[in-house]
Amino acid sequence: MNNDKSHSGLLYLVGLGPGSDKVLTPAARAALEDSDAVVGFRAYVDQVAGLLEGKELVAMELGQELERAAKAVDLAYAGNKVAVVSSGDVGIYGMAGPVFRVLTDREWDGETPSVETVPGVSALQSAAALLGSPLMQDFCAISLSDLLTPWEAIRRRLVAAAQGDFVVVLYNPRSRRRDWQLLEARRILLEHRSEDTPVGLVRDAYRPGQRITITDLKHLEDHCPEVDMVTTLVIGNSTTYVHRGHMVTPRGYEKKLSQA
Amino acid sequence: MNNDKSHSGLLYLVGLGPGSDKVLTPAARAALEDSDAVVGFRAYVDQVAGLLEGKELVAMELGQELERAAKAVDLAYAGNKVAVVSSGDVGIYGMAGPVFRVLTDREWDGETPSVETVPGVSALQSAAALLGSPLMQDFCAISLSDLLTPWEAIRRRLVAAAQGDFVVVLYNPRSRRRDWQLLEARRILLEHRSEDTPVGLVRDAYRPGQRITITDLKHLEDHCPEVDMVTTLVIGNSTTYVHRGHMVTPRGYEKKLSQA
Repeated sequence: MNNDKSHSGLLYLVGLGPGSDKVLTPAARAALEDSDAVVGFRAYVDQVAGLLEGKELVAMELGQELERAAKAVDLAYAGNKVAVVSSGDVGIYGMAGPVFRVLTDREWDGETPSVETVPGVSALQSAAALLGSPLMQDFCAISLSDLLTPWEAIRRRLVAAAQGDFVVVLYNPRSRRRDWQLLEARRILLEHRSEDTPVGLVRDAYRPGQRITITDLKHLEDHCPEVDMVTTLVIGNSTTYVHRGHMVTPRGYEKKLSQA
Repeated sequence: MNNDKSHSGLLYLVGLGPGSDKVLTPAARAALEDSDAVVGFRAYVDQVAGLLEGKELVAMELGQELERAAKAVDLAYAGNKVAVVSSGDVGIYGMAGPVFRVLTDREWDGETPSVETVPGVSALQSAAALLGSPLMQDFCAISLSDLLTPWEAIRRRLVAAAQGDFVVVLYNPRSRRRDWQLLEARRILLEHRSEDTPVGLVRDAYRPGQRITITDLKHLEDHCPEVDMVTTLVIGNSTTYVHRGHMVTPRGYEKKLSQA
């Protein structure tokens, strides 16, 4: 902790990437090292335990995002340098949201404490890297969690994504209590895409137990039981194909070559 | 170059991030160091020049993506370890696509050469980090370049994104020869969103000359002349607001707190 309070408080919002030191950026490492306190979900804080000696740790449980953000903002207003960490990218469904929400509610002046966001490799990028090259055309990310978003809004986005022929990345696809949303998403997509549309499932990317599955919309149903909250799905668009265990969305360059 | 050819070829697909050493991941650095040859667009290869001593460099010009990919695949089939680099994330509109396309065309067996993709921080993440927390709800990425994708497909995606109330990230928004697509995108979005929907523009993220602008859909028209191919736009959804120069999309956590 900072005891002289000579500076005016700083919030680092830090994405840790998929959970391996190999993908922690130097900027993220520097932010953690510079911080007096580190705030985050227990599993993520543990993940960077080696960097945290001598710092105040505020490890909380899942579902306490606003409380965590409020604690971090308190510490920053008190003159500390505080790192708020998320797995993946803090700016994609991560802790950046709750922190800015708390700052807004406290009528933050936009300058003190200062906020510096350090992006990390997100789940959609880890999944894409392990599957092949699925994100070479326009894509969208949709979270199937209806804890904070009404299902009707999610359903509307699934329909739009299907109509727009986007490659679709699904976050939070299924939990023990939310077991029907993924099948409903599949049903909506099948109204606009063929049964053989490639689907990639990546669980625990770059972690022990990493699992990569490539199937199609038809057979996705069979794989549902193995899908959980740490699984990311990538569903191809109408041009995506599978080549020898790799999911490929062409960019269109081949047309260009043949015209050359 | 590898002269003993004792191994069977390896393609590293490496995302360099937004162009600063501070965001180059250790995995990306290790891949570059392990490579015999590095293939990429000249400006990106120059960006990591310090890491490339003693390696064969294949620096090409923009628009030669398939040729670059073919050269890299040739070198890998000859037994070399080859890094193919893209700015941002190689897996998002990057060189992963052309490389997998060439491999497919050559009836690659899926194993030799082996392919290892190393994600980097993409333009959408850099832009979000510099703007605030715009990507806290479902979002999509759309490239406005119609060089390789028919405009009708892009238009259809813009309509779908607008209907689905996605936060929209626009890549390749405008060049000297493509100056009307951004205004057309604005027109489509205005059919579904209010004129005061926040719009963030980020140019040269994390580079010298970085420029960040926050405006709204109504005034985006005035900013068009300053938009170019290295500008990324983030357009809010119906809930996005601006607080003291920061673009915030709430996640919905505040409802949860008030219920607690």
